[in-house]
Amino acid sequence: MSIADLGCSSGPNALLVVSDAIDAVELVCKELNQKPLPEIHVMLNDLPSNDFNGLIGSFEDFKKNHTCFISVAPGSFYSRLFPSQTLHFVHSSMCLHWLSQVPVELQNGTKLGLNKGNIYISETSPPFVLEAFTKQFERDFSQFLKCRAEEVIHGGCMVFTLVARKGEDPSVEGIYLQWELLAQALMDMASQGIVEMEKIDSFNLPYYTPTLEEVKNAIRREGSFAIKSIQMFDVGWSEARDKACEHDGKVEENATTAQRMAKSMRACSESLFVSHFGKELMDELFERYSNFMEGYFSKYPDGALTNICASVQRINVL
Amino acid sequence: MSIADLGCSSGPNALLVVSDAIDAVELVCKELNQKPLPEIHVMLNDLPSNDFNGLIGSFEDFKKNHTCFISVAPGSFYSRLFPSQTLHFVHSSMCLHWLSQVPVELQNGTKLGLNKGNIYISETSPPFVLEAFTKQFERDFSQFLKCRAEEVIHGGCMVFTLVARKGEDPSVEGIYLQWELLAQALMDMASQGIVEMEKIDSFNLPYYTPTLEEVKNAIRREGSFAIKSIQMFDVGWSEARDKACEHDGKVEENATTAQRMAKSMRACSESLFVSHFGKELMDELFERYSNFMEGYFSKYPDGALTNICASVQRINVL
Repeated sequence: MSIADLGCSSGPNALLVVSDAIDAVELVCKELNQKPLPEIHVMLNDLPSNDFNGLIGSFEDFKKNHTCFISVAPGSFYSRLFPSQTLHFVHSSMCLHWLSQVPVELQNGTKLGLNKGNIYISETSPPFVLEAFTKQFERDFSQFLKCRAEEVIHGGCMVFTLVARKGEDPSVEGIYLQWELLAQALMDMASQGIVEMEKIDSFNLPYYTPTLEEVKNAIRREGSFAIKSIQMFDVGWSEARDKACEHDGKVEENATTAQRMAKSMRACSESLFVSHFGKELMDELFERYSNFMEGYFSKYPDGALTNICASVQRINVL
Repeated sequence: MSIADLGCSSGPNALLVVSDAIDAVELVCKELNQKPLPEIHVMLNDLPSNDFNGLIGSFEDFKKNHTCFISVAPGSFYSRLFPSQTLHFVHSSMCLHWLSQVPVELQNGTKLGLNKGNIYISETSPPFVLEAFTKQFERDFSQFLKCRAEEVIHGGCMVFTLVARKGEDPSVEGIYLQWELLAQALMDMASQGIVEMEKIDSFNLPYYTPTLEEVKNAIRREGSFAIKSIQMFDVGWSEARDKACEHDGKVEENATTAQRMAKSMRACSESLFVSHFGKELMDELFERYSNFMEGYFSKYPDGALTNICASVQRINVL
């Protein structure tokens, strides 16, 4: 039985879902009195720049409590990663809102820099910006489904969670506000001559939070997977970030919620900012970001992050 | 089609054999006019301490010229690494002379330190030292064959190369002399009080160079593989080391053969010496080693390294 976790990252949480999956298989086998247990082959995927040495270093401990084979399959999940019809279960958590690239429509000469002063879809973005991001997500997500359709056996299942938005306008809710605050921090630095305005104008995040309808439609349009269940749910800012900053079960106690959130946003996005703005500006940027976030939280302590979680099954295409 | 390379290491040579294997499959398919080509799944293995980040960083370039899926399966090849009956071809180059551990017989209280002044089997070693190393090799090699027997499909093939010895006495030839010179370098440092004698007495290399008969007998005794071909061959010191020190096709030009050999021996064994003697002594140790080697080479310029290369096939055990 082959289980793949796509976008596994590294660190203490990297093997958490895989651990649950193995336990679940063992439990079902026990209930059905099925012996011997099936051999489980776990495949962990992330981009080649992930810290695989760190990840691999944790395998020995993991194997003490879990009977399985573990291998690592580096690469973009927007391309083929595994041989045809070899996977029984695929999981991906909090990754599919990352696009394969900044929308191509915003990268060419005439449109480059037309999302001035923003780094994502903002209230001040021209309409084609939303359109460009939507199209890129459709292309990427459909490509993701096509690749997995080749790899997952008929009847095999896939569960994924990604950040989403409730309404049509992405510039009014959820994670968007976090990028907006990050853009504010950049603009703040530009106003003091620390960052060039052109640098900000030419930067966009390869990121998109789809609506529930967009995800449903994309799955139906691609046609290889049937939706078994799909739901949208909110996770409160503070709850989400407490979880994200837990380490060995302990929350960093002295940090405020805003500080923890800034840290967690830095962890997931810093590499994108480094390659565009340079490593030397990062401490300054995320320090200012943390301050903007403190201000925001004092006004809106009840903000929430919207997620979509879907369970789909590979069906025969007639 | 699944191809595994066991002990792949990292660096420019890590994907060399895999590249040849893929080319060979494509050539045969072309000759037989077989289309489409089979999907090839390459699995690279080495110990968890290997630099997998570096290795994975080279995949993108490799995939430009080779159509395949690549994954990494970290762990000791003296244990199971892959699910049952999933491998079509297994390769291992210059690894199987490394034992899973220093012979257990030399690790216990009474025998510990009885191989005084030596780090491997030497002329001055008591007879049970050779016996202990031989037994450990037999256990390890048999375990290796047992694990692969589970993983390789019936009819699947395995090719491996390892360092070997021609005669019964391992203390008179080949690679042994290189360890002997390394022991001399350590003893030299001990005589000047830089290393404690007890440290040397309690250190043994997890290493063994079997004879052709020992390898043949072990394969027959285990019984899962039929020997298709097995041969012993010599590689001249200077030739072997020129090859080993080639980088991007260029030999380091200013280094003497002795210096290059010392460097290459350091690359393959330093981590073992570091954990016992400490990192800070390594430059000194390998500097002295290089000098001893210069002296040795001026006397015996025609030394050679003996290798065994075997090709075996998984057979049905009746």
